Amino acid sequence: MVKAVILLSGGLDSATVLAFAREQGLECYTLSFDYGQRHRAELAAAVQVSQHLGAVEHRVMEIPIGALGGSALTDADIEIPDDGGEGIPVTYVPARNTVFLSLALAWAEVLAADVIFIGVNAVDYAGYPDCRPEFIKAFQALAVLATKQGVEGRPVTIEAPLVALTKAEIIQRGTAAGVSFAMTVSCYRADEEGRACGRCDACHFRRQGFVDAEIEDPTRYQT
Amino acid sequence: MVKAVILLSGGLDSATVLAFAREQGLECYTLSFDYGQRHRAELAAAVQVSQHLGAVEHRVMEIPIGALGGSALTDADIEIPDDGGEGIPVTYVPARNTVFLSLALAWAEVLAADVIFIGVNAVDYAGYPDCRPEFIKAFQALAVLATKQGVEGRPVTIEAPLVALTKAEIIQRGTAAGVSFAMTVSCYRADEEGRACGRCDACHFRRQGFVDAEIEDPTRYQT
Repeated sequence: MVKAVILLSGGLDSATVLAFAREQGLECYTLSFDYGQRHRAELAAAVQVSQHLGAVEHRVMEIPIGALGGSALTDADIEIPDDGGEGIPVTYVPARNTVFLSLALAWAEVLAADVIFIGVNAVDYAGYPDCRPEFIKAFQALAVLATKQGVEGRPVTIEAPLVALTKAEIIQRGTAAGVSFAMTVSCYRADEEGRACGRCDACHFRRQGFVDAEIEDPTRYQT
Repeated sequence: MVKAVILLSGGLDSATVLAFAREQGLECYTLSFDYGQRHRAELAAAVQVSQHLGAVEHRVMEIPIGALGGSALTDADIEIPDDGGEGIPVTYVPARNTVFLSLALAWAEVLAADVIFIGVNAVDYAGYPDCRPEFIKAFQALAVLATKQGVEGRPVTIEAPLVALTKAEIIQRGTAAGVSFAMTVSCYRADEEGRACGRCDACHFRRQGFVDAEIEDPTRYQT
């Protein structure tokens, strides 16, 4: 059976990726990170999504990138804006996906997994550099050279099946694949119960996605 | 002033790299990892080396790769061999340098640092895939695409100044640059006081290096 490590944030995109991997019959190992994010409700969502979609094992790794600061998502002194504005927004977390993929790579090698799935998307997104296809391609090249698996000719493959989809397409295909989006938390300002602010960038893309997909939005909002 | 993040294990190689960076007048931020390694004495050595060579700040990040297992360096059930043997030895830690560099990349971006130094060496080494120049080159390519710094045209540079040196050359140049090798710990079986076993791969390369360099070996051995 093909083994897959799935980066699972607890949000809409990574839940869809997990559903795709399960549809393909893969044995799924889900990985979340407690990295000092303010919207920690996503971690509880990841547990639920993982169970609901039948992952074999869910692991939460604690990593110290939040303590470095430099992002509105980890530093309470930097306000989360309602609109990302021009360029790369302050919600960008330095090197986050590089760190996440590198730890997924470590786990994948120990498991002798064949593939790592990541839910990055470069269409309806905030402009983060580490969500682009060229980033994924560069990480794939690195993974071949970095590991014993790679040197021995059976490198892990990095799959980013959402990279070119719109948010509406993700929601439509995720729904068809059995995702329960009510379980997922996307909001940067999510409260302890996972209720969304409805105003941040993440809420904006999500809400518009449901409108465009013509699917009822199951998100619980704070007001 | 040019800022540099230096990956500092507490061993001979990374101490030399720090000395090189200090010789160039760089403002050095040293980074060590508590990753569940059995030879934790290297962490105390890193603190000493860092102070001795005048780093501005030393940081220890706790990361959960040891708990994954898959290496003699982190799993007490796998014996550390006296000789690495054929191929990539059991002391290989899955994706270790990828994880280390990705966390260094995160810190470098928060600091707005210009360069990351890593003490990998592909001459007198154990054959780890993530110590080779092609691995470093691939990580450099990734760093350009992964970060805001990179997208904005001022990517961090990855420097591996020891990659093509013999262990004897590293010892000679490190000595000239002011490293006190007595402070450093290389042994995979180092005891709590940092005394070396004299028999593992790391001890072998280190001991032979001092012989070839014709410099007195200051290593404290267990017997």
